[in-house]
Amino acid sequence: MSKLLWINPFGNDGSDQSIYAYLAPQLASDTVLRVTALPRGPEHVEYHYYESLILLDLLHTIKRAENDGFDAAVIGCFYDPGLREAREITERMVVTAPAEASMHIAGTLGHTFSIIVGRNKWIPQMHENVVKYGFRDRLASFKSVDLGVYDFMKDLNETNRRLTAAAREAVEQDRAEVIILGCTAQLGFFRELQELLGVPVIDVAVASLKYAEFLADLQKRLHWGHSKKYGYESPPIAEIESWKLAEQYQLGDLWKR
Amino acid sequence: MSKLLWINPFGNDGSDQSIYAYLAPQLASDTVLRVTALPRGPEHVEYHYYESLILLDLLHTIKRAENDGFDAAVIGCFYDPGLREAREITERMVVTAPAEASMHIAGTLGHTFSIIVGRNKWIPQMHENVVKYGFRDRLASFKSVDLGVYDFMKDLNETNRRLTAAAREAVEQDRAEVIILGCTAQLGFFRELQELLGVPVIDVAVASLKYAEFLADLQKRLHWGHSKKYGYESPPIAEIESWKLAEQYQLGDLWKR
Amino acid sequence: MSKLLWINPFGNDGSDQSIYAYLAPQLASDTVLRVTALPRGPEHVEYHYYESLILLDLLHTIKRAENDGFDAAVIGCFYDPGLREAREITERMVVTAPAEASMHIAGTLGHTFSIIVGRNKWIPQMHENVVKYGFRDRLASFKSVDLGVYDFMKDLNETNRRLTAAAREAVEQDRAEVIILGCTAQLGFFRELQELLGVPVIDVAVASLKYAEFLADLQKRLHWGHSKKYGYESPPIAEIESWKLAEQYQLGDLWKR
Amino acid sequence: MSKLLWINPFGNDGSDQSIYAYLAPQLASDTVLRVTALPRGPEHVEYHYYESLILLDLLHTIKRAENDGFDAAVIGCFYDPGLREAREITERMVVTAPAEASMHIAGTLGHTFSIIVGRNKWIPQMHENVVKYGFRDRLASFKSVDLGVYDFMKDLNETNRRLTAAAREAVEQDRAEVIILGCTAQLGFFRELQELLGVPVIDVAVASLKYAEFLADLQKRLHWGHSKKYGYESPPIAEIESWKLAEQYQLGDLWKR
Amino acid sequence: MSKLLWINPFGNDGSDQSIYAYLAPQLASDTVLRVTALPRGPEHVEYHYYESLILLDLLHTIKRAENDGFDAAVIGCFYDPGLREAREITERMVVTAPAEASMHIAGTLGHTFSIIVGRNKWIPQMHENVVKYGFRDRLASFKSVDLGVYDFMKDLNETNRRLTAAAREAVEQDRAEVIILGCTAQLGFFRELQELLGVPVIDVAVASLKYAEFLADLQKRLHWGHSKKYGYESPPIAEIESWKLAEQYQLGDLWKR
Amino acid sequence: MSKLLWINPFGNDGSDQSIYAYLAPQLASDTVLRVTALPRGPEHVEYHYYESLILLDLLHTIKRAENDGFDAAVIGCFYDPGLREAREITERMVVTAPAEASMHIAGTLGHTFSIIVGRNKWIPQMHENVVKYGFRDRLASFKSVDLGVYDFMKDLNETNRRLTAAAREAVEQDRAEVIILGCTAQLGFFRELQELLGVPVIDVAVASLKYAEFLADLQKRLHWGHSKKYGYESPPIAEIESWKLAEQYQLGDLWKR
Repeated sequence: MSKLLWINPFGNDGSDQSIYAYLAPQLASDTVLRVTALPRGPEHVEYHYYESLILLDLLHTIKRAENDGFDAAVIGCFYDPGLREAREITERMVVTAPAEASMHIAGTLGHTFSIIVGRNKWIPQMHENVVKYGFRDRLASFKSVDLGVYDFMKDLNETNRRLTAAAREAVEQDRAEVIILGCTAQLGFFRELQELLGVPVIDVAVASLKYAEFLADLQKRLHWGHSKKYGYESPPIAEIESWKLAEQYQLGDLWKR
Repeated sequence: MSKLLWINPFGNDGSDQSIYAYLAPQLASDTVLRVTALPRGPEHVEYHYYESLILLDLLHTIKRAENDGFDAAVIGCFYDPGLREAREITERMVVTAPAEASMHIAGTLGHTFSIIVGRNKWIPQMHENVVKYGFRDRLASFKSVDLGVYDFMKDLNETNRRLTAAAREAVEQDRAEVIILGCTAQLGFFRELQELLGVPVIDVAVASLKYAEFLADLQKRLHWGHSKKYGYESPPIAEIESWKLAEQYQLGDLWKR
Repeated sequence: MSKLLWINPFGNDGSDQSIYAYLAPQLASDTVLRVTALPRGPEHVEYHYYESLILLDLLHTIKRAENDGFDAAVIGCFYDPGLREAREITERMVVTAPAEASMHIAGTLGHTFSIIVGRNKWIPQMHENVVKYGFRDRLASFKSVDLGVYDFMKDLNETNRRLTAAAREAVEQDRAEVIILGCTAQLGFFRELQELLGVPVIDVAVASLKYAEFLADLQKRLHWGHSKKYGYESPPIAEIESWKLAEQYQLGDLWKR
Repeated sequence: MSKLLWINPFGNDGSDQSIYAYLAPQLASDTVLRVTALPRGPEHVEYHYYESLILLDLLHTIKRAENDGFDAAVIGCFYDPGLREAREITERMVVTAPAEASMHIAGTLGHTFSIIVGRNKWIPQMHENVVKYGFRDRLASFKSVDLGVYDFMKDLNETNRRLTAAAREAVEQDRAEVIILGCTAQLGFFRELQELLGVPVIDVAVASLKYAEFLADLQKRLHWGHSKKYGYESPPIAEIESWKLAEQYQLGDLWKR
Repeated sequence: MSKLLWINPFGNDGSDQSIYAYLAPQLASDTVLRVTALPRGPEHVEYHYYESLILLDLLHTIKRAENDGFDAAVIGCFYDPGLREAREITERMVVTAPAEASMHIAGTLGHTFSIIVGRNKWIPQMHENVVKYGFRDRLASFKSVDLGVYDFMKDLNETNRRLTAAAREAVEQDRAEVIILGCTAQLGFFRELQELLGVPVIDVAVASLKYAEFLADLQKRLHWGHSKKYGYESPPIAEIESWKLAEQYQLGDLWKR
Repeated sequence: MSKLLWINPFGNDGSDQSIYAYLAPQLASDTVLRVTALPRGPEHVEYHYYESLILLDLLHTIKRAENDGFDAAVIGCFYDPGLREAREITERMVVTAPAEASMHIAGTLGHTFSIIVGRNKWIPQMHENVVKYGFRDRLASFKSVDLGVYDFMKDLNETNRRLTAAAREAVEQDRAEVIILGCTAQLGFFRELQELLGVPVIDVAVASLKYAEFLADLQKRLHWGHSKKYGYESPPIAEIESWKLAEQYQLGDLWKR
């Protein structure tokens, strides 16, 4: 049995239940899922400042989940905020995020993929992730539909129309073999779209959930977790304690051994 | 339930049972595994000519497995021979192979990895796969232990000694965070090695088996299979029939609609 | 004197004579050319499965040619199928193919080139060759004219019109300095096109023929042939014999020492 | 006149005065410098978790400096933490950091450079910055001297000995033309080292200070500041207010218009 | 105090005064600027042959400037002709040029930039510089306005119209965050353009002047000049003398010690 | 019949005859070779300044050769000085140079190659050529033997010893499949070396001669010469005349139509 935590990395828990309802049917029978938002924060993380605002609460939520016996955590935003840091502070739990997970899957399913984003603003940081994860030469294009995170659900027909137009252009002009819907708020559009276009369309929320389940299984069976050598080496508890970081940042017993 | 086929891409079925015994414990409870070798062929595929000799039998075994209702196939050689072609001729089944699977996993577990190979001979083609899959900048190094495929099992102590020395050098000098044992004949060494070195050591047979299971699950639940647009577009049955390819190559009813 | 073998890598020998007639005038006075198709096979190799079908017959044709004293072989398809394997199994003969040859020439004649292909399907594998041969940053674009291999010769006016439009767009919009007609079935169009557009237009059949002649000359004079160290190291005859590969694959005396 | 803020991104203000004393002599006559540490935090930021801990205080210090009329800010750590975010939240002020600044300078002074770091742990994130800033092909090597941030000043002779040995190896074996001392704690070693080795040795604290001064001058004279289009587009104040982020995070009047 | 030399690398000194008048207001109060053209040569250097014609006079002007105590030289052409050679023959003086300087600045101000050039002819060599300086992945696009060097000043309205159209397209379609006006003859357009488009628009003449001033300051304060190890190692005077190069090329006392 | 010009790009014609004698046996029976040095210049071109000194004389020698009916020119230095410019000013003649020619050949003969150079000084510019020609990922290593151009022939045994040691290390440690002797002064060593090491060893003088012959043949038969579109577009004669460049640079009737 695996225990997974999905974190909506913003301070609005209004969507936790609907996300749980959306994700739960995709789980293996022995996977337990919990969905949580953060105790505070902006309502979306389109701006990098907003990512910064939620970063610590996100990391501490993840560390606490590890303390509580969770096997895997998913950071529910396509910027993959805090992914490196989360892997550094955890010791046994695996952590993944939508961009990493969906690019690995898309790179297996086709030679090239396009990423449909909401706004051009998002592209520079997301492009850095494409490069970092190794998929620069697989990227057919970024396509923007000119919608903010919260616009996706305002007029579903209009959203669907724009996503379809952008994805079709990606397939026909940019020769994308796979489409990635590059925002966890683009929920529920992929099935209709992939039937229409005849190429796999990756829902990044589902993709990262399944990838987390996969990684948790590898960790349990084979002890293949994040390497603690070099980049993900954890900070020493002794240092954390001697600097009284728990007091400085009101972390309670988070780092108690 | 998923049905998986592991193919030993050579003509020696002597190892089918031991490979089955090795892999089976790693499967999900509802996965069924079959292990098969080919009806003829060289006894290993270190040389690219040998890969060519087994290619058609491999592809037809895979196509027949799809016809027989298998959900996934794994090509059991770290050269990933025939991976592109297998994805082209199948319509529903997913296909993976050790290099692809283990690099995706290693790229998730650490920033860099090294691949321990048997002989320098193998490296040029494997390096092309590293580049093709997107991991050129993640590759810390290739290390050769100067052992042919069938040498690995001759003197297990010596093999272990060489793998350990090469992996240690990769971690300490080349700063690899993850080790990939780059041959499906390097079976069973990973556990001891990863405990010794303190970094994940990927057994590529197990990695590709689990990746196949993961992909089969995605295909079943979400219809995320290999894109049939462009690169993996299947050849038209009408053409295959009109050219009498089944007769020319003694394929029986393989391509019967 | 050099003896060259041009291999049409498909089972239709109907075009052997016309290809001979097309190529022969371009040879040096002391070059002897033979053109051959394969004993069986699909009629074109647009699909990678078809490449697989012809691969062994192709390789054995090449090895037999070496045994028969040929100096060079050209694999007559722009996918360059079996190029690596052919170089591995030969010891003295040089082998080349259209994509490799024409990209080396185009890269010398201009800063950038575009490749005009028949169908989008072809591009992923061809793009891998572009990367493998080192010309990714020289590639201005791929252009597809939406014609299958056998469509090129159906309506020559229409083919010419489409090639011209695609090539012009490549030059004017993508700033290609050289055009490569990326299919050995695009025979005979280059002269008119290059006069019209004012840039070199590479006929890939002629390009590979001349490159083969060049390589054969280097081999004869200077012993610069394919390196037999590492990647192209030949399989050991002893192994081929002990595994009875000749019997298993009906190869006769091909591998007799 | 330019007003510069140097931020020691950790909670230990013990070094503010010595850093001021070290940097001040390098300033233009009309530049005013202030050095500040953060109100709380770990004592160094070797671990990415520590970077996360200080990130918000760092960003708010920068935003407040802009509100207070500063022209430029320097983030005093070679990881360049928060650089992207700082540029997003500021409107007029320029922001730079040691890795960016020193690589631009080193890339101008020589064809290649090596970066001397304290510990291997640092390299993966720093390597990502090398790639992001465009200097992957200029990087001769990373060299680790196996010293933590606070070890540099413990035994100056030993530190000097190790830096010299690493830098010499970088020049002689890796053919580095320039050396970057990749930590703001490697203060004061560069002069002796560059005299000894005969290549420029970049002190990253001084380099970033001077680069900040340069950028501030460009901003003042020419209005060349960070582009607010796309990646660095600032979050809308209206959103910040409507979500009561100032209250949630105790930011006072930081975002008051 | 720094002494800067701006060299118009062509034989037409008609523009020296206007360039001086254009550049002088941007200098620091203690910088002295001299602007000079060459004693002979073509009137522009659009063709690489013209670059060759002026190369020696350019280099000797630079060497003589060093002998005369100048601190920095700027080669006033966006091809950056002779930059490597100039750094090789100088010992203390720093040398820079418009492409290098403006790309470093643009790469700091935004994630991506586009370069507006006069003619497509210019792009191949300029693209090589983009790659050489490390900015290939930062380049959003080259845009040509189809104007030769001397056309820029013929009809200022038309020039402005074309630059605006090209820059706007670069920002909106190619997602450039910064614009570089890629010719030192595109003087004076940047201010209006950057106000109109809302992104930084780099005037490459001013950019290189300021970068030279910056480098000269680093050299004076910190002895960070061009590395004389390997690539920029100067030719030995003894060799120059023993081959009587001064006599062969009428260099007078240029190389006198 | 093809007329080839080999240019020793320095002012010492002492070696013209020996180079002719060395190269002539490698020519096709209908190729006519002329070898020439320049009328003045340094005795070698190890320094980029020396390349600059000879550049104009080199280009004018090439242009005059075209006027005189030569079919191809080879620039006899592994820096490939003036290659771009020479292709710009010629209209029908093909031009090549040792680095370009030998890398194309080496890239065809093996997966990777190493370049043995005289001094580390040479590497930065040569590395730029490796990248420009597309072979960065094929380059196994540069190896320096610490010998200047004129040292190669001083003590042939010592030179041979050093070349052998460097080449062996390249093959065994860096896994080079082909060796390039990266200087036209490393004449005559390749045969013994390739026999000893069992890999092709490219003599760059012979390689470029044969490549020139090959290109000249393509030009004659197929009109595949350097593209005159964009990068190699020739300067307009009208401009050359109106600026009196012939008078300014004492070019006589070189540019007379």
